[in-house]
Amino acid sequence: MKFTIAQLDYHIGNFTGNRDKILKAIGKAKSEGSDLIIFSELCISGYPPLDLLDRADFVEKCLQTVQEIADQCKGITAIVGSPTFNRKKEGKKLYNSALALSEGRVTFTANKGLLPTYDIFDEYRYFEPEKKFQVFNFKELRIAITICEDLWDEQPFDNKFEKSRLYTISPMEELSKLHPDFVINISASPFSSTKVEAKKNIFITKAKKYGLPVISVNQTGANTELIFDGASIIIKGDGKIFSLLPYFEETVETYVLEDIISGRIIHTGPDPEDGSVELIKKALVTGIRDYFTKTGFKKAVIGLSGGIDSAVCTCLATEALGSGNVKALMMPSRYSSAHSVTDSVELAGNLGISYDIISIEKPFSAFEDVLAPAFDGKKKDITEENIQARIRAVMLMAYANKFGYILLNTSNKSEAAVGYGTLYGDMAGGLSIIGDVYKTEVYKLANYINRNKKIIPENILLKPPSAELRPNQLDADSLPDYRILDCILHQYIDLQRPVDEIEVDGFDSSVVEKVRNLINSNEYKRYQTPPILRVSSKAFGDGWKMPLVAKY
Amino acid sequence: MKFTIAQLDYHIGNFTGNRDKILKAIGKAKSEGSDLIIFSELCISGYPPLDLLDRADFVEKCLQTVQEIADQCKGITAIVGSPTFNRKKEGKKLYNSALALSEGRVTFTANKGLLPTYDIFDEYRYFEPEKKFQVFNFKELRIAITICEDLWDEQPFDNKFEKSRLYTISPMEELSKLHPDFVINISASPFSSTKVEAKKNIFITKAKKYGLPVISVNQTGANTELIFDGASIIIKGDGKIFSLLPYFEETVETYVLEDIISGRIIHTGPDPEDGSVELIKKALVTGIRDYFTKTGFKKAVIGLSGGIDSAVCTCLATEALGSGNVKALMMPSRYSSAHSVTDSVELAGNLGISYDIISIEKPFSAFEDVLAPAFDGKKKDITEENIQARIRAVMLMAYANKFGYILLNTSNKSEAAVGYGTLYGDMAGGLSIIGDVYKTEVYKLANYINRNKKIIPENILLKPPSAELRPNQLDADSLPDYRILDCILHQYIDLQRPVDEIEVDGFDSSVVEKVRNLINSNEYKRYQTPPILRVSSKAFGDGWKMPLVAKY
Repeated sequence: MKFTIAQLDYHIGNFTGNRDKILKAIGKAKSEGSDLIIFSELCISGYPPLDLLDRADFVEKCLQTVQEIADQCKGITAIVGSPTFNRKKEGKKLYNSALALSEGRVTFTANKGLLPTYDIFDEYRYFEPEKKFQVFNFKELRIAITICEDLWDEQPFDNKFEKSRLYTISPMEELSKLHPDFVINISASPFSSTKVEAKKNIFITKAKKYGLPVISVNQTGANTELIFDGASIIIKGDGKIFSLLPYFEETVETYVLEDIISGRIIHTGPDPEDGSVELIKKALVTGIRDYFTKTGFKKAVIGLSGGIDSAVCTCLATEALGSGNVKALMMPSRYSSAHSVTDSVELAGNLGISYDIISIEKPFSAFEDVLAPAFDGKKKDITEENIQARIRAVMLMAYANKFGYILLNTSNKSEAAVGYGTLYGDMAGGLSIIGDVYKTEVYKLANYINRNKKIIPENILLKPPSAELRPNQLDADSLPDYRILDCILHQYIDLQRPVDEIEVDGFDSSVVEKVRNLINSNEYKRYQTPPILRVSSKAFGDGWKMPLVAKY
Repeated sequence: MKFTIAQLDYHIGNFTGNRDKILKAIGKAKSEGSDLIIFSELCISGYPPLDLLDRADFVEKCLQTVQEIADQCKGITAIVGSPTFNRKKEGKKLYNSALALSEGRVTFTANKGLLPTYDIFDEYRYFEPEKKFQVFNFKELRIAITICEDLWDEQPFDNKFEKSRLYTISPMEELSKLHPDFVINISASPFSSTKVEAKKNIFITKAKKYGLPVISVNQTGANTELIFDGASIIIKGDGKIFSLLPYFEETVETYVLEDIISGRIIHTGPDPEDGSVELIKKALVTGIRDYFTKTGFKKAVIGLSGGIDSAVCTCLATEALGSGNVKALMMPSRYSSAHSVTDSVELAGNLGISYDIISIEKPFSAFEDVLAPAFDGKKKDITEENIQARIRAVMLMAYANKFGYILLNTSNKSEAAVGYGTLYGDMAGGLSIIGDVYKTEVYKLANYINRNKKIIPENILLKPPSAELRPNQLDADSLPDYRILDCILHQYIDLQRPVDEIEVDGFDSSVVEKVRNLINSNEYKRYQTPPILRVSSKAFGDGWKMPLVAKY
């Protein structure tokens, strides 16, 4: 039996686009003599459809698209993911389903049993969990079709407080009693740079436990903050990897089932490690590219400060959109160092992007003038610093409005965590590129970008971080050294450790307490930040829900 | 048997504050000879604690607080709401529990069975649903203790697509088999102006169905967007209302159980109707006041444009914070009408608040100057309009930074829906006051505010809505008349009707289609808006989760 894995990039609600992409893959599979083609979870609607699922008309359109695809499944069976109606009187209105389509009909339906509702997932918001599981009888074979989390009934969480068994049922345990020949898992599993190994291990563990081949089909591409790495994988019944598909690339690949069972042939695949900077870079480039493609925009504008963050973001944007589609703006003030502009100009030259230099002195003086009567007798403070940052946002947004650019935000995760940024100033933008990348990781990205050729000027890599909003200002004046800070942030945010369990070599707990207070007191700023491309297992944004008025 | 209802306002994570408030109520109940005092859902932690529940140390502090309260329950039993640990090997790590406390011990535990996970609720994110239910044996009485949604297994949804039975179990049906004498329901049920009757009916229906008195205890106060109306209610076994506690007020009230069972005495209570403008006003004032109290701020700054929205917001803020704590800023431009300032000055005078008038001409000219080379040959467009709105935000935020004000946002729900506002301009602010109030309802609020005395000048009520960002601009140039627009928005947003089922007398479907497209294409703006005080059953904010890159 030949089968095909279709690892594709879907667009939420773009039914004709998704349908045509699916039909094209079916055509390729047929031409390769395939009997079965497998698409990923909710490929019909795109993932995550969120509250579009609360609209009956949206779900009707999903099912209409399913029918259009079924009509084209002649001599081949396709497994697609779609929401379907729960026809029972009670419960949530929908199921998250895998549908087998053949000769114009739905020949088999499997509904998802385990609905992830944590971090960025909120599937129980929409779907009724299935409690009964059946195998799909296909050409003398018995196939256990599972949907993403259905195979993840045991999983390691970064937060030690979570149970490793988050659910009280195990769909695969039930399915195994029905003696399947192999397992299919369709998923829409977003990338996390620290979960590369863990993801593979989930499938390896299940293959070994049940002694069955596991074919996992994930999607790729990005939908706003969520970036899907693809990396669909085939595991043999002994737990060995048979094939690993590329990360962040659309691929349609046909295999012979007997090769997997016999174990004769091993396909090679990419094999990156946890935390690989190469994968993080690919993820961010995919995230930028897809945000523009899917919103119909082509061009980005970005403020180049002479610092490492905006430099790295500009490199990533240029790779994603092309040098002709990125515009840089340098906006020096009376407090800017001389090199802030020259370094940026050098970077723009290296990237071949166009740039403008506009001093903010004139609007800054104008604001100082008109506010002078009200601020009479008051000392200069953070107010004047914020005014400068906000003037820059007004300029960048003026460019965005006038020329149809999207403004890219260049704040990093360390700043976002401790509130070291100006709301409506440097925190503005349509998409945050590195808002899930700690400052120390930004340096790693910069070095990776420079691995073959000096693109980011040496001076940008070496200068001490500064917002340059007052004379001789350095980040280190207000914040702990970024190596210390990031070490604390990682434990508090990503691992969700209690303050008294956070370990920082050679530093006392008052630093930890101070950082925690900064994190908690700046929720109100994060509430209004742009969507952040997610590359860790705990990003600010949809997966981080904190009360704004808490006293904790 | 005497029992006491404690309808209080809790602060998330403020354990000592919540504990002291609870102990004070227990003291009052004891002094009135009460045997049992009932507090609301998750009163120990405050509701909603959100992802603080992912922190083991937070839950430990809840349980420590429970113990401190239990130690003070001498000669009285208290029912409190708290998260508790799920000690089983499988499932979510917590339960949402009601605990009976007496003589230093937890004498009974009831866990919530139905976990609302829709709109602003995401309880399955944290809690394991209980499947087994027991009655609490107390002084010869058998009490069915239920937690909020546990009694809501049948409910009408505004969205006709939802099933009225959202769950496959009914805790009260199970409890009724154990022959309870009466029902307690503890809740943290947020206000919605269209659900006033529906909420009462839930309790009336259950009382009648089981022939049992129902004692419902809700909290009051607000936590950011969620405003709790209190309105705790006692229903007799025949479904008649025995007592209704005040809306939006802390109350500790003692009753005699036998009076309810015998039906001899009827307490009177407030009895407002659905959509009552009085309740909406009270809700908004509560929301503002609590946001300031709980964040530790005292003073607000607000931009007064001469329009109805900022006028109403200023009145509400003045009622919530006091006239000494509200600062108005008038910022005329070259396009402002003469009356925009004079009307605002008159309003400020009527309210007794201080104000400053600062023309934005100087910074506006400065921006025009510095951008002129880049914009050479380009026509004036929305860019220049946005620059003006953003200059005003820079000024307001400068005041906020310099003097420690919170900037209040004055955008209404109609504007927020169709994206008629400037990101980082008039969409800025720490809290949106009327972002869940349609424009036509803003007029109702204004008339209500003026019911006894002309506070908002007549001219503000009569002038046609305008952003005044270009010569002779009117909202009606870009948008349908607000009566038509709001009618469409209500059906599409609040009732979630499909476009082809939206009825607008005398208007063709192209208007509806246009409005729908405006809503969908402006998700990116709403992603970055301040938290919005929620007074409807479908507000923008946490209860509205839409993909930004969808094509639909």
